[in-house]
Amino acid sequence: MGDLRMSESFSVKSNIRDSYQVQFVGNLQVQLEILGGQKNVIFIIDQNVYELFLQELKIIENSRLVLIDPSEKFKTIDYSQEIIRKLINTDVRKDDILVAIGGGITQDVVAFISSILFRGVEWRFFPTTLLAQCDSCIGSKSSINFEQFKNLLGTFNPPSHIFIYSGFLTTLSESEIRSGIGEMLHYFFTKGIDLAQDIADSFDKLLDERSLLKPFISESLRIKKEIIEIDEFDTSIRHIFNYGHTFGHAIETITDYKIPHGQAISIGMDLANYISLNKGMITNVQFDEMHSILKKNIPPFKLTNENIDQYLHALSKDKKNKGGLLGCILTYGAGKVEKIFLNMDDNLRSLMLSYSDSYSVK
Amino acid sequence: MGDLRMSESFSVKSNIRDSYQVQFVGNLQVQLEILGGQKNVIFIIDQNVYELFLQELKIIENSRLVLIDPSEKFKTIDYSQEIIRKLINTDVRKDDILVAIGGGITQDVVAFISSILFRGVEWRFFPTTLLAQCDSCIGSKSSINFEQFKNLLGTFNPPSHIFIYSGFLTTLSESEIRSGIGEMLHYFFTKGIDLAQDIADSFDKLLDERSLLKPFISESLRIKKEIIEIDEFDTSIRHIFNYGHTFGHAIETITDYKIPHGQAISIGMDLANYISLNKGMITNVQFDEMHSILKKNIPPFKLTNENIDQYLHALSKDKKNKGGLLGCILTYGAGKVEKIFLNMDDNLRSLMLSYSDSYSVK
Repeated sequence: MGDLRMSESFSVKSNIRDSYQVQFVGNLQVQLEILGGQKNVIFIIDQNVYELFLQELKIIENSRLVLIDPSEKFKTIDYSQEIIRKLINTDVRKDDILVAIGGGITQDVVAFISSILFRGVEWRFFPTTLLAQCDSCIGSKSSINFEQFKNLLGTFNPPSHIFIYSGFLTTLSESEIRSGIGEMLHYFFTKGIDLAQDIADSFDKLLDERSLLKPFISESLRIKKEIIEIDEFDTSIRHIFNYGHTFGHAIETITDYKIPHGQAISIGMDLANYISLNKGMITNVQFDEMHSILKKNIPPFKLTNENIDQYLHALSKDKKNKGGLLGCILTYGAGKVEKIFLNMDDNLRSLMLSYSDSYSVK
Repeated sequence: MGDLRMSESFSVKSNIRDSYQVQFVGNLQVQLEILGGQKNVIFIIDQNVYELFLQELKIIENSRLVLIDPSEKFKTIDYSQEIIRKLINTDVRKDDILVAIGGGITQDVVAFISSILFRGVEWRFFPTTLLAQCDSCIGSKSSINFEQFKNLLGTFNPPSHIFIYSGFLTTLSESEIRSGIGEMLHYFFTKGIDLAQDIADSFDKLLDERSLLKPFISESLRIKKEIIEIDEFDTSIRHIFNYGHTFGHAIETITDYKIPHGQAISIGMDLANYISLNKGMITNVQFDEMHSILKKNIPPFKLTNENIDQYLHALSKDKKNKGGLLGCILTYGAGKVEKIFLNMDDNLRSLMLSYSDSYSVK
């Protein structure tokens, strides 16, 4: 693994602020005490996290505090306004700093509010889910749903500081850990096979001893950092991180988001690899090697004659499509992903059904 | 006057995009035809402007169009959502360009929407009021009211292109022209006496022949450009443009916005100058010279024992105040404005009443 595994902090270059800091925190209390001691800090905390870590958060009991409901249905502009109302009740001012503690939804809402309140206020972030720690905490994006349109609204607005504390991972469900692992595997596979193999080799142990995830989180962020420093606004090379996502999102859509994100994209990567295999981009050996890793994280899901048309319809709505062609990331082998446009024809349909016949988990 | 009076376009440096263009448009039709010919353009037009310039706007009748109600009560996040809904109905996409035609409120709403839709879409702007042409069209700010809090929300998001067409000024009321003139005077007084004197000398003619305003608009923007290129985010030197505004805003507040903005700040400047005189910062001659210009644009308003406490209360809420002191811009003579903190004591109270006794218009 790279140097970052050892280092306790690094910075990410950004067009929005010059750079922002990612810091691995050994002692949560110390960090909270520093922030809690600043009069211009307002904490915005996921209400579940708040209850689970009541003891640890006691140290900021004299600070201004707003609790947030982190469910997807609240990732809206209306709920953002409710949080703004609560912030006004804490007498929020332009030079205040919002400190968010929570997962991806907390991040989305606080990043969005920080973008539009007083034309922008500073915010800092303690990600508490594995998905937020290994992925979403860097990259500047916020996403807000608008009516039936997922992620239609949003801004680019990174926190000024990110504090990653492994202790938050201890209360997560196995499914949440698996979701984060899926996301990490996707970053690792854009670089090569080794880190993904490391994850697979210690898979069960990682589910159990969450502090062991820390070096993988660090590597995952390092891979993402390299690309977002070049393409923060996602207009070119950052597209490679759609690997597994095009096919995964469509699975999430047709299963009404019952399959956790990172697990859906584990299937998505496997399917992308299968298509790559059938296009002669990789060998059977390469496919099998990656499949043996991915299958550890693949949940039960099968494409059949019953759902394949719905699946293709969901794929046809992908934003990356062009002129009726499906825009997706395929692979020339671990470490070599590339954007390819596919005809959405019967051939693709058959290929997907044949993938599911051979590789889906029951 | 400077070079810009002659030139038909100039650019403004920005931290948000590298720079944006301001272009004085002689022929509206030509410009609209170019934009209307682009499939990815959606026009968002002030519904009053749309009716008044129906003939001129016929040229874009095949373009996608959203009409906007430009009243202050619609400068909200709720109304922004209504416009987003209308944009969705026109099948808006990430690479579309929103072209706003209207005054300050249209600008605020479209700039705000452009900031949050798809994490930012490009927008262009045809300001149609004198206030928007001579001032708000550059400077990147958008402001959205939140419940009872004026301009609590907003972003920094300049249009990529600004097209200034004097023809739009022909349908404005005298009061709207006076409001714009007040704003221009405030820019001119931060540089010296000459441009302000020019306005005063041709005051009645300007109310009548609106195309004569063009060189003044150009000069006003040039003065603003110089400062916002240094301090786009309004954290330092841009504060000088609060000259007249601190005292003017409080007049707007206590008169429930019945006095047009630019006229309220004309009184605000006169009052700031009177305080400057009494602090020995300027001479009677200097005060009189500026007063003789400002009085042409000062509407009936008087501070009395009945409203002075309400006025001081409004001033006490100003965001620029610090530690109970009133933060405002005073003058050492035309061209030399400076931020000063004043005690909000009986002395200030008396000074304001004595100003109004001597100089208010009935």
